[in-house]
Parts: sequence; C-alpha cells; structure tokens
Amino acid sequence: MVPKFAFAAATAVLLAFTPVNAVWPLPTSFTTGSTALRLAPWFDIHIDVHGAPGDLVNAVKRTKQQLWNDKLERLVVGRGGVDADAVFKAGQLNGLTISLENGAKVRSISEEAVAPLESRDESYTLTIPGSGSGALLKANSTLGLFRGLTTFSQLFYYYKNNVYTIEAPIEITDKPAYPYRGLMLDTARNYFPVKDLERTLDAMSWVKINNFHWHVVDSQSFPLEIPGFEDLAEKGAYSADSVYTTDDVSHIVSYAAARGIDVIVEIDTPGHTAIISNAHPEYVACAQSTPWASFANEPPAGQLRFTEPAVTNFTSDLFTAVSKLFPSKFVSTGGDELNVNCYDQDPVTQATLNATGQTLEQALDTFTQATHGALKEAGKTPIVWEEMVLDHNVTLSNDTIVLVWISSQNVVDVAKKGYKVVHAASDYFYLDCGGGGWVGSNPAGNSWCDPFKTWQRSYTFDPTANLTAEESKLILGGQHLLWTEQSGPENLDPIVWPRAASSAELFWTGPALTNVTTALPRLHDVAFRFRQRGVQAISLQPLWCALRPGACDLTA
Amino acid sequence: MVPKFAFAAATAVLLAFTPVNAVWPLPTSFTTGSTALRLAPWFDIHIDVHGAPGDLVNAVKRTKQQLWNDKLERLVVGRGGVDADAVFKAGQLNGLTISLENGAKVRSISEEAVAPLESRDESYTLTIPGSGSGALLKANSTLGLFRGLTTFSQLFYYYKNNVYTIEAPIEITDKPAYPYRGLMLDTARNYFPVKDLERTLDAMSWVKINNFHWHVVDSQSFPLEIPGFEDLAEKGAYSADSVYTTDDVSHIVSYAAARGIDVIVEIDTPGHTAIISNAHPEYVACAQSTPWASFANEPPAGQLRFTEPAVTNFTSDLFTAVSKLFPSKFVSTGGDELNVNCYDQDPVTQATLNATGQTLEQALDTFTQATHGALKEAGKTPIVWEEMVLDHNVTLSNDTIVLVWISSQNVVDVAKKGYKVVHAASDYFYLDCGGGGWVGSNPAGNSWCDPFKTWQRSYTFDPTANLTAEESKLILGGQHLLWTEQSGPENLDPIVWPRAASSAELFWTGPALTNVTTALPRLHDVAFRFRQRGVQAISLQPLWCALRPGACDLTA
Repeated sequence: MVPKFAFAAATAVLLAFTPVNAVWPLPTSFTTGSTALRLAPWFDIHIDVHGAPGDLVNAVKRTKQQLWNDKLERLVVGRGGVDADAVFKAGQLNGLTISLENGAKVRSISEEAVAPLESRDESYTLTIPGSGSGALLKANSTLGLFRGLTTFSQLFYYYKNNVYTIEAPIEITDKPAYPYRGLMLDTARNYFPVKDLERTLDAMSWVKINNFHWHVVDSQSFPLEIPGFEDLAEKGAYSADSVYTTDDVSHIVSYAAARGIDVIVEIDTPGHTAIISNAHPEYVACAQSTPWASFANEPPAGQLRFTEPAVTNFTSDLFTAVSKLFPSKFVSTGGDELNVNCYDQDPVTQATLNATGQTLEQALDTFTQATHGALKEAGKTPIVWEEMVLDHNVTLSNDTIVLVWISSQNVVDVAKKGYKVVHAASDYFYLDCGGGGWVGSNPAGNSWCDPFKTWQRSYTFDPTANLTAEESKLILGGQHLLWTEQSGPENLDPIVWPRAASSAELFWTGPALTNVTTALPRLHDVAFRFRQRGVQAISLQPLWCALRPGACDLTA
Repeated sequence: MVPKFAFAAATAVLLAFTPVNAVWPLPTSFTTGSTALRLAPWFDIHIDVHGAPGDLVNAVKRTKQQLWNDKLERLVVGRGGVDADAVFKAGQLNGLTISLENGAKVRSISEEAVAPLESRDESYTLTIPGSGSGALLKANSTLGLFRGLTTFSQLFYYYKNNVYTIEAPIEITDKPAYPYRGLMLDTARNYFPVKDLERTLDAMSWVKINNFHWHVVDSQSFPLEIPGFEDLAEKGAYSADSVYTTDDVSHIVSYAAARGIDVIVEIDTPGHTAIISNAHPEYVACAQSTPWASFANEPPAGQLRFTEPAVTNFTSDLFTAVSKLFPSKFVSTGGDELNVNCYDQDPVTQATLNATGQTLEQALDTFTQATHGALKEAGKTPIVWEEMVLDHNVTLSNDTIVLVWISSQNVVDVAKKGYKVVHAASDYFYLDCGGGGWVGSNPAGNSWCDPFKTWQRSYTFDPTANLTAEESKLILGGQHLLWTEQSGPENLDPIVWPRAASSAELFWTGPALTNVTTALPRLHDVAFRFRQRGVQAISLQPLWCALRPGACDLTA
C-alpha cells in the first residue's frame, strides 16, 4: 500500500550514504575500491624503521590489539551479515609494513609530539592493495606513522571472526589542515582521577587530536603538585587523594606524548586563583568575599594581587617551576575574567596603586611582562585567553597564542592585532553549554551559554569567517572545551564523545572537505568504535537511524 | 585584608545549611536531636514480623549492606573529620527492630507494590533513641517497612570505620503526599540491557519512586517478547540480543516489586507503531513513508490502521497478552501524536472510511473502546497520553489516568474533564530536553523542548497550579521521563540522576514542605550516596560548592 516510489527513494538514500569505512577524521586524499580483503590470521605489522623507538613499537602493539578486539560490525540493517558473502570469499592481507621516508630522522613519537607546533609533521601515506600482498604505511616521522596506524585501525569491520574491508584497494595521502587540534579539560571545578585522563587521551588520539589543554587549577581547587610550591596542593586540593603528583604528571605527559599529544598546562592568572589564598592569604584579593557575584563570575571570588612585587615574583617562580614539569613549548597563563571591582575594593591593591601612581592596567602590564618573561626564560611560548589582547593593554610578545572563547565574533579583532588564534569559542565549542544553571537558590537559572552546542554546530564552523587571506594564516586550529561545574568522572565520556570528534575532523580535514550530512553516519561509527574500546560515547540518534544512514535526515 | 564581616557572614551561611542527614525524600514529619550515635559492631536489624516474607528479609539484608558499605562522609570542609570527636565518644546503637502495626495483614512487599495505586500504604514511623537502646520501625504494611528501611539507610554517615549520626534522637512519621511517583524510560529508540534496568530500579527505590512507566516499544524497535506475538520482537527488535524475553520481564517485574515498584508497561497505539509493519505490513499505514516529517513527528513513520477490524482484534489480543505479563493494575495504551495526514494518504484507511461512512475520529473511538475493553476484561485500568482526552473525541472510562506531557498548562483542561492526572509535562519533567537536535542534515537543529530542565525547575513545580480544590484531588502525582533518541546505557545514569530525585521528593514530601535552597545540599548528598552505590549520578556543582552548603547560592 505504500507508494512504490517512496520505498525506492528510501533505498537510494541508504546506498548513497552507507559508509564502508569509519576513518575519522577523513583523510585529505582518500581513494577506495570495491574489493573485499580480510586480515590473514597471521597478519602482522612489520616495523621497517632502524632503531625503532619504544613508543612506536607500543603503538604498533596497540594497533594490532584494536584490529582484532574492536569487533565493530557495519552499521547497516543486518549488520556484518550484509557482507557475509564478500567476506568469506575475500583475499587475505598478510601484513602492513611501516617505514620512514628516505632521509627522515628517527625520533620517538613522544619527541615529535612536543615539538614546536608548526614543525610537527603528521603526514603519512597508506596503501592497501586489492590482493593479499602487503600494505604500506610511510611517513616523514614516527608521529606521521602513528597517525597512519590510527587510520589503519579504522579501515576494518568485524564479522564472525573476520576483520575485513570491502573497499580495497585503498590509497590514502593525509596531513592535517591545521596544526592545532585540541581538547581542554578543567580538573579544578571537579577532580578527575588519572585513569580518566588516560582514557580521554586514548580517545583523543583515535581522532588525531594533538593537544591536551589542561586547565588543571582554578579558584575551586589546586590539584597540581609543583616542586617548591607543594603547599598550594597540600592546602588547595580537594583532598590528599585529589592531587596530580609530579609522578602523575610525568606519567600523563609521557602517556600523552606516546599518543602524539602535547600536554599544554594552564595556570590561570591573575584571576581564577582564589584557592591560592589557602596557602598564601596575603597574595589574594577578595578571597571568598561575598556576595561572590560582586567579585567574580562564579564562586569563590579571589584574584592574585598582581600589584604586589611579592606576588609577581611568586607567580614568575611558579611558572618557572611548572615549566619544568611539562616538556611542551607552550604554557597557558590564562588572563580571563579579571574582576576590577575585586581590586577596587581591595585595600592592599589600592594602597600600592596610590603609592606607585600606577593604574591597575599599568600594573597588569608590569605583572604580565614579568611572568611571561619567566616563561620565555624557560623556553615557553605563552597562550592567553582573548581578554588579554581585547580588554587589556598589556604588552605581549608577537608569538603569543590567543584562545578566543567569549564569542567567535571576536576572532577578527584578535587577528587584526596580528596574534595567532586557537578557536575555542563558547558559541561553538563549549561542551558544558545547555546543562542548566548550577548556582544555588535560582530555580529559573539556565546555562549562560545556552543552547547545547551540537556536533553539527561545531562541525559546520567556518575557521576563517570574516578573515582576510593574510589573517587566515594566523588560525592555528581549534578545540572543544569542557568546564566541569557539572561534570566529573561519571559524565566525562558522554559529554565529550563523540562531540569533540567534530572539531577534530574540522581542523584536520579542513572545512573544504567536510560535509555534515555524510559525516553523520561516519560519526555514528566513531561512537560505536569508541564504545567497543571502552569510552562511553553517546548515541547520536535512535539505533534505527544509525543503521539506516540518511533515513533520519530532516530532508529524508 | 578581607573585611571580617564577610567571613562571619559566610560562616553563618554554612552553619545554617549544612545537612547532617541525607534522607531524600524528606519525611513529612522529622525531628532530630544533637546526640552522636554509631552503629554497634554487632548492630543488627530484627524482623519482628510473623512469617516475614522473603522480599522483606532480602530488603533487610540489602539495608545492612548499605549501612556498612555506603561509606559516605559528610559533605563539609574536612569531611568526616569534623565529626571525629563526637563519633569517637558516641554511644552505640544495638539494633533496629521492624514490625507491623497491630492487626496489619502480612503480605509481601511485592504484593503491596502492585496493589491498586491509592490502596498502597507506604507510611511508617521510625524512632532512633539518643542512647544505645534499640531503634524501632513500624508500619501498616511490609511496603511501609521497606520505605522506612530506605530512610534508615540514609540517616548515617561514615568516618573511619564508624557508621554514625550526630542527630539522635530521631523521630520520623512519614507517608507520601501523592500516591504516584514515577520514572518513565523509553527502551525502543535505544535498547537498555536488563542490568541497566535493575540499576535504575534500585536507584528509584532509594528515593521511594513507586512506579516504573516502561515505554518498552515504539516505532523504532519492538524489544518485547509477547506470548502469541513472538514475531513482533523477532522481526522488530534491533537484534536477537536486544529483546526482553518473557523471562526477562518476569525478572524485571519481580525485581521492581521487591523494591516497592510497580511496572506499568506502555504499548503505544495507534501511533508510534511503525515497527509492527516488519511482522504485519498489512496492519500499518504509511510505514516508513517519506519524507517522514509529513507522516510522523520523528522517523520512521507508521501507524496502526485502526479503521480495520483485523487491526482492532490484533491490538485487543495484544493488550490481553501483555496484561498477563505484568501484574500491575495499569497498562498505558499511549495515544499520543496521531498523524492525520498518514491516514489521509493511506488508501486502505480511506477505502474503509468510505465503505463504513465513519469519520476517522469515529473509527478511533471504536478502536479505543474495543482495545480498552480488552484491558478492562483483563482487569487493567488504562493510562493514556493527554491527546486522547484533549484532541480526540473518544469514549474513555472515568478511571482512565491521563499523562499530561505537551505542556503543564494542559493539566487544567484534563482535570476539568474529570480525569485523574499524572504530571509528565515536557516543560518540567522531560530529561532529554536541551540535548540539541538529533535529526540529520540540520546543523541548526536544537532540542524541541529547549532548554534543559534543571532539577530546580522540576522541584519547584506546583502540582495543583490553577486547579480548584476538587480538581486538585485528581492529581495522582508525577514523574520524570527519559526519551532515548540520544541516550543509551552509556549516559543513562548521568541524564537521570540525581535530577529525577527532584520529582520523587516533590511528590512524596509535597510542595508545602520543600525548599529549593535547602534541598541543594541534600541533593548533593543523594548524588554522592548514589555514586557510592554504583549509580553514576552527576556532580551538580563544583565540589567546592558541595562542601560549603549555601556558599554558591546566587544570593550568597
């Protein structure tokens, strides 16, 4: 009774959108055939790299485990069964050989991962033949090889003990459109055990995110043990169990680096520092002053007294000490949401300003130059939030990287000032938006950055909107961000994944090659593969839709 | 340097709001002292009930496990340590004796849980002395005893191997303000394994929710095995693994009943039935017709051809068979979102209407009377969504219960028609709102029921707004609801908890005794205790706030 044409149309839609590989982010050059090929039982990955570094050897081991353990069946009606005939007749792939291009220097993934951002070479080529001969992965660096291994692990599906593709031969030439793809996690509002960070780093690496922006401390807690500044965590962590010790940091940094991820730590100053008053009450203005809303954007109030030379020295020394814990070339010094009223009401700050004749802005410039100077001395490039260039008149070095968060509209202004930009705008990339208000005694409260930012929204963001060609060169990439007022280990995965994969693809593949309609079935695949690997990515749609690519489109 | 008065004010706030018990929902009469009391190492619960039913014995066992295993420290700065002195000097509580009031009939919790709604007696009294003599729990029913045990398990905190209260003596007289506190879960958009339902039922029982409204099937999948109708699940479940077998249903029903929860199944008809076409294409109009948006509120389209006598018989027989699987006195027959265009375009429906001379509405009345008749025959009372009384002219029996979902504004109209109401309004109780749009190819899509419904919003809902005293008597209670377009096992707990506890308290304690400001620290306690028990309730605020009750209020 259903009109025949309707059924035919629906079938056509299904065929057009059914993905037969789940590589995410989409490689920049990607050709596939239609031959079935399965991994031979003896399939192995041969490392043809002289003196192969240990992290590459381990990455190969993990890749092999993923190939056999993912057990992800195709997301179509009938699942893996639709490929049964092809699979049982398929040729066998004997192995994958990975090697560096001629003349490439052999350095570990971990070394490559923390190199200066624009010098990291993540490119690779991957060739999978139509017959059973070997597949080849080549790159200029072990980091590129790692990216290629990640891609390789996503080319295959599972059906009845077979790990196969129906798209051989496959030719991939791939490299990122932008050097910076990141994820920011706040571990200060609520604490996350190391194992949650490990799982998050794993997931990040699966979608080729290469920077972990670690907003480790804030006004609520100081969970970072820093040699010489142990009292900050001793008195400022939520508990003795909720501290990232120097051993933890060292572990996290090397865990990340082995997965191609640079850990960029943020010590937000001079705002967002109330908790420092637990150890150094004399350094903090308006610590826990009430009503908090008069002194801070969220409780508790408290900001470093940057007018005080002792505070400047303390902060500079802190930055120097922190710099030693992290091999990254970058440290974020924050600089957001400075509350002027806090300083206006602070007798110490006012006394010093009166004595020196400086304005608050002049004192901020002095503080910033000194503390950034300490970072430079330690070989680091500073990263700041947008207010430091848009709201304040501080002197920053040209290479300072600016995180635009308040609004994507502000990118133009930052670029016009000549600073490099990482997209981090709340109107596209904030994972916490839309979760409702969280301050107490306010039944009508909603999320300040309502509505929820869907993956579709971040995925269709234009990184160079309203920028000239010259300004566009200042865009380093972008990232999703999770502020954790309403998050903890219990909802970390569902809030972040698969949403954060959308910016990972946007900034790897580049907006010219992305398409939100064809991305959806591929992103379902990401979510399902993540779950197979133990990361609790959410369902983006009813399974009915996931199994019928395109059928739940608004236009279907 | 911080003004002294500010600190003093902050301290006063903390003292005023610090909860020293975490009972949720708040008992309707609750007096506490200030004596510390800890469970003796030999503490036991004595069941002074002749022929105590097995589910009561098991409930006592679980309560003892919770008492010793929750290990929840007070949520204050310093945690359990703040009570150290009191705890080490505290007297010991030897035991709790539970008994029925004189003359009460001994029936199992499971029997009481599925009795007609307004006949369930959940009241109890609980007395904990200031000295070490025994505590007493009394009730008119084993169900009341179970509610009292639930309360008892929440009166205690943990510190260094001590399980204690600092509020003895405690006197509680408690009973629910409304007979219906529910939770609805949709297991059709995405499937949830039985263990997820068990965990959810456990959590529901901890906040005294007494009805599990199980929206088990829908257009996307039919995961319910029904004797005589096995083909519906065989052809309509997502997979053979994604079926609630009759054994599963029997297990879920008894698991729930032993926890004081009635399982009310919903077989939504005549809409939301596309999947039935897999087994019976001849029964379904516009099955998977495209564009789906012309035929249904969400994909896939498909509705029962209720004009056809064969369909009416099929549905009646289906209801009869389903009725046997569930001991509840209630079955929901749905009736929401009937799409008229689907029938207008359906040649079969149109041919029958032409032949009989009936209007669509008249045919719907015939269908409803017949199918509800089958339910009545099976001893069940029907529950319907609001459209069945507000949009359609069907004959319903007076005892039909109406779920108001489109808007809380519609409650008045339903009450004016004299039907009993369960609050289920999307503008207060929908847990899925605010999660962004999920249909594909629509980057700008947002949740249709934006914004996110916070716990504060549902908690401050007025169940009798705009109703006369007489109409107010029709309100049976209310529930949170989770539609699972964007949910699965991976985010079930974080979406539901602790939010759904807010309606549980509203409808147990009653709006007269609830206060959103003092509720927040108590709800933190709920979330922490849930996590201790393995349910991944989210953090409502930074831990800094959770440890400082009141300090993060907007007015603090």
